[in-house]
Amino acid sequence: MKRITFSLVAVAILAGVVAYLAPTSGQADREVASNGVKIPPGYRDWRLISVAHEEGDLNDIRAILGNDVAIKAYREGKLPFPDGTIIARLAWSYDPLEESAKAFGRPQSFVAGPPKNGVQFMVKDSTKYASTGGWGYAQFDDGKPADAAMLKSCFPCHEAFKDRDFVFTHYAP
Amino acid sequence: MKRITFSLVAVAILAGVVAYLAPTSGQADREVASNGVKIPPGYRDWRLISVAHEEGDLNDIRAILGNDVAIKAYREGKLPFPDGTIIARLAWSYDPLEESAKAFGRPQSFVAGPPKNGVQFMVKDSTKYASTGGWGYAQFDDGKPADAAMLKSCFPCHEAFKDRDFVFTHYAP
Repeated sequence: MKRITFSLVAVAILAGVVAYLAPTSGQADREVASNGVKIPPGYRDWRLISVAHEEGDLNDIRAILGNDVAIKAYREGKLPFPDGTIIARLAWSYDPLEESAKAFGRPQSFVAGPPKNGVQFMVKDSTKYASTGGWGYAQFDDGKPADAAMLKSCFPCHEAFKDRDFVFTHYAP
Repeated sequence: MKRITFSLVAVAILAGVVAYLAPTSGQADREVASNGVKIPPGYRDWRLISVAHEEGDLNDIRAILGNDVAIKAYREGKLPFPDGTIIARLAWSYDPLEESAKAFGRPQSFVAGPPKNGVQFMVKDSTKYASTGGWGYAQFDDGKPADAAMLKSCFPCHEAFKDRDFVFTHYAP
């Protein structure tokens, strides 16, 4: 009996070690952008900041989510955002809903289709990312970070919003 | 000293009673729809199901949020939704973002402006709402429920989606 108990404990420990190692071993190279930004675990569970639609080449419908630090700062109207803030931008294909188009005789509803244009993050660390307004920018396409050249294109646009701490999105009440 | 302590306790109890009564006394009539659906507390903190844009008279951009029961059922692909599911539809004015329109020379980004078209809820209770597919529908405009006639217009449209348990929105991954 003692041996069985020991074996079960050993298996449990081994399983724990494997579970702990698994996410870092296989995907470490894929999930870290050149500036060190990683995909934050559980971001799809974060609360909603706002929604938007982009026309043109992007042609997507998107949601901006924030971690707890972000949501608190938004609701308190606190600027600049404190270190630890992370803002996520998810986007999906901008698809006319067939059923309502049929019912209305013209496109009426546009809904989110499959994911599109990757997932983007803004991570606030005023020391680490001092040269880009205190924010680290990253985009991941199917879990793979966009290259350094692409990331360099983020800040020049965000820089115009210095009075809003470089953040485009307002909180939607 | 004993009397002071007693008075403080009495004040604390009274304050507790007032705090308990306050939300039901003043707003009871405003916050309950004719079918019994109320505004669920904390719904703005719920997780995101999907996003959409409505054209025509509605002309809004919207987010569909779900309580924990809803999110679990969506992610597990469970149909019908279990009792206790609540789906919330928030909507905002569909506003072109001035800054990006200026930068692109044409409308590029459409963002959420002020709240618009009220807040809607679908509450699953297969017994209470058996006559409308197990869902109670409600809309609140500035906290005030829409009248019974308006609520009657919900089910005839949702009825066409019986194979999806009367729910329009798919989960956006």
